[in-house]
Amino acid sequence: MSTISEKIFSRASGKEAKANEFIMANVDYAMAHDGTSVLAVRSFKKMGLEKVWDPKRIVIPFDHLTPANTETTAALHHDIREWIAEQGIPNFFDVGEGICHQVLPENGFAMPGKLVVGADSHSCTYGAFGAFGTGVGATDMSEIFAAGKLWFKVPETIKVTARGKLGKHVLAKDVTLKTIGTVGAAGATYKAAEFYGDTITDLSISGRMTLCNMAIEMGGKAGIVPPDKKTFDFLEGRAVEEYEPVYADEDAEYCAEYDIDAANLEPQVARPHQVDNVCDVMEVAGTKVDQVFIGTCTNGRLEDLEIAADILKGEKVAVRTLVIPASRSIMIEAIRNGTAETLLEAGATLGTPGCGPCLGGHMGVIAEGEVCISTANRNFRGRMGTGGQIYLASPVTAAASALTGEISDPRTV
Amino acid sequence: MSTISEKIFSRASGKEAKANEFIMANVDYAMAHDGTSVLAVRSFKKMGLEKVWDPKRIVIPFDHLTPANTETTAALHHDIREWIAEQGIPNFFDVGEGICHQVLPENGFAMPGKLVVGADSHSCTYGAFGAFGTGVGATDMSEIFAAGKLWFKVPETIKVTARGKLGKHVLAKDVTLKTIGTVGAAGATYKAAEFYGDTITDLSISGRMTLCNMAIEMGGKAGIVPPDKKTFDFLEGRAVEEYEPVYADEDAEYCAEYDIDAANLEPQVARPHQVDNVCDVMEVAGTKVDQVFIGTCTNGRLEDLEIAADILKGEKVAVRTLVIPASRSIMIEAIRNGTAETLLEAGATLGTPGCGPCLGGHMGVIAEGEVCISTANRNFRGRMGTGGQIYLASPVTAAASALTGEISDPRTV
Repeated sequence: MSTISEKIFSRASGKEAKANEFIMANVDYAMAHDGTSVLAVRSFKKMGLEKVWDPKRIVIPFDHLTPANTETTAALHHDIREWIAEQGIPNFFDVGEGICHQVLPENGFAMPGKLVVGADSHSCTYGAFGAFGTGVGATDMSEIFAAGKLWFKVPETIKVTARGKLGKHVLAKDVTLKTIGTVGAAGATYKAAEFYGDTITDLSISGRMTLCNMAIEMGGKAGIVPPDKKTFDFLEGRAVEEYEPVYADEDAEYCAEYDIDAANLEPQVARPHQVDNVCDVMEVAGTKVDQVFIGTCTNGRLEDLEIAADILKGEKVAVRTLVIPASRSIMIEAIRNGTAETLLEAGATLGTPGCGPCLGGHMGVIAEGEVCISTANRNFRGRMGTGGQIYLASPVTAAASALTGEISDPRTV
Repeated sequence: MSTISEKIFSRASGKEAKANEFIMANVDYAMAHDGTSVLAVRSFKKMGLEKVWDPKRIVIPFDHLTPANTETTAALHHDIREWIAEQGIPNFFDVGEGICHQVLPENGFAMPGKLVVGADSHSCTYGAFGAFGTGVGATDMSEIFAAGKLWFKVPETIKVTARGKLGKHVLAKDVTLKTIGTVGAAGATYKAAEFYGDTITDLSISGRMTLCNMAIEMGGKAGIVPPDKKTFDFLEGRAVEEYEPVYADEDAEYCAEYDIDAANLEPQVARPHQVDNVCDVMEVAGTKVDQVFIGTCTNGRLEDLEIAADILKGEKVAVRTLVIPASRSIMIEAIRNGTAETLLEAGATLGTPGCGPCLGGHMGVIAEGEVCISTANRNFRGRMGTGGQIYLASPVTAAASALTGEISDPRTV
């Protein structure tokens, strides 16, 4: 009668853990990126601590402001590199390796049944592999660095079931946006979500990552897809240690259940300035855009780039279009299979793997009054630049909009 | 008895122009990039002017801070795009097209005998095609925008003759650094340089661009290679209008002559913090580096990337290594012929075509105390970040240093 989260927290705490209980759990892998490691390390040092609990269970990718955009960033990067060397942390991914939530799965740190905690809100991405992946603040992360454990309230769980075969140009991102629109931006606050139904099992690993990535956008502590053969195949030769898949019991208790009719789903768009301000693409079609951005931990994977390239092949973009692969290996694959060339020939611009403009830090900040259609996960006011407007959509909707210069239904382009 | 510069200024001013005379010259093509167009346009508007003299003779590439790194940049880009549209300037190259000094030649604006003026000091690059290419301040550019002409003092000319076949791993950049070391950082102030000798005629177009690009680093108003078959072949199907090659008369007067013994040249390095602080690579070999940067208008061309890839093929870089192609078309070519894949496999990072970290604006700023070996053209104190140290070298020396993590002689790696 336990959910996936209850089972993972039971193992991680060494005692039977039920929803709403407070427990102390051992963390399997702890992640901080260049943005949050700065604060986590500062806090770690402030506590007078010298050595981290287990260097090989800490993973630090540099992704937010890479390559360094300012002297301040360069100095912070420098200091963190020194600390990483001092601590002997082997899993350091420097400038250009990619976005944390892509780098951890690619390198086998996101595994079924594990508790993977990141100092980044989209750490829920790891749930795509049946892990309990969750984000914490940087000072909480310093506690994990020190002791390898942290207190948690075991979350209640909502059950989301999506059924039906997706139509042409309807993607995982559309299921995700529809789910968030249905549950609401605060509908799953401090809850875990478990995803079921044939729509979900049909999703690729990449699509499941898109889905779980955005669990936080409905307030979720985690979003979990039960692991299956696709998961195990992906992890073959990649998982950094043994793992034990965990599934919910038949009689597990869910605090709410939602059904998504995926068969009749249209391409979705989240309008400014809330992620749950979701509508069918037709409702906003024709909105002029100044910039198209395809990338991020939500939709910067090979599959996403390929989908965009299919639409752009032999055509020319009408507005500036930034494509940023989520990792070095994705960029290499996109180069090998012609995707990168197609995108560049169409007039899109390729950027260094990383988070880029998603957070308005650099590499594609928008001006006041400008509109960006983005495959990212957040359209909060000012996120990509004060006074800018962000529409969230799938890579195919974004690519279709790049061709026309306005938000466009990919089925009609 | 005229130099190339005197002949070009004679045509452009409509009267016989001799060195040290002040003349008013018609500009054939005027360039301003995202950094300088802002000031040029502001000044243009301040003069109460409405229409530029000839929209199709103005070329505006965005390259310095692209994709936009801050809200300020995004706003400035936005305003310049609006002005470009208002003025009907057809030759606008937005984010991702590449560096101005690459974009103009690629698109046929740099032609023998032309007067091409840019609001950027490295506009002397166009001399590689037998043009008089020179940089002016942004307010001077606003005058050109208004009237298509500007006053010049016709420069005296120095003659640089390089003889001999370059040894293995000795490149155009080494000839360039040796020349600057010989003439001195102020040795050619307000003078033109004409380049002669079999070493120069043997250089590729790319190598000649490297050489002319850095004429300003010895104070030069221009650096000119007499056009030949290589030049004409490059311009075939590319030149935007007819052109008339211009050559110096046998009895042209030179204010100074320099001979470079290229046959016995070693790979050169310019040490911090002056471009003419040049030495053989052996003198600084072993200096630890934190970052390697291969790119810029000096050395971001396909040939440069290929040379780096040859060294890095099948190996792994020891330090963070940024490679930024000088233009979209170079990036596409580097992807097509495997160069990009080789660089990425070796652990180098690819960036969006543009100026990137050369000016410390973004995409690779270095921290205090850090050392960068760079293929760029300037190593001034603080240019890539306050307290950083920049060593200038050729792409093969930079790539060799990437492999070892210290400045290395490419002939011994």
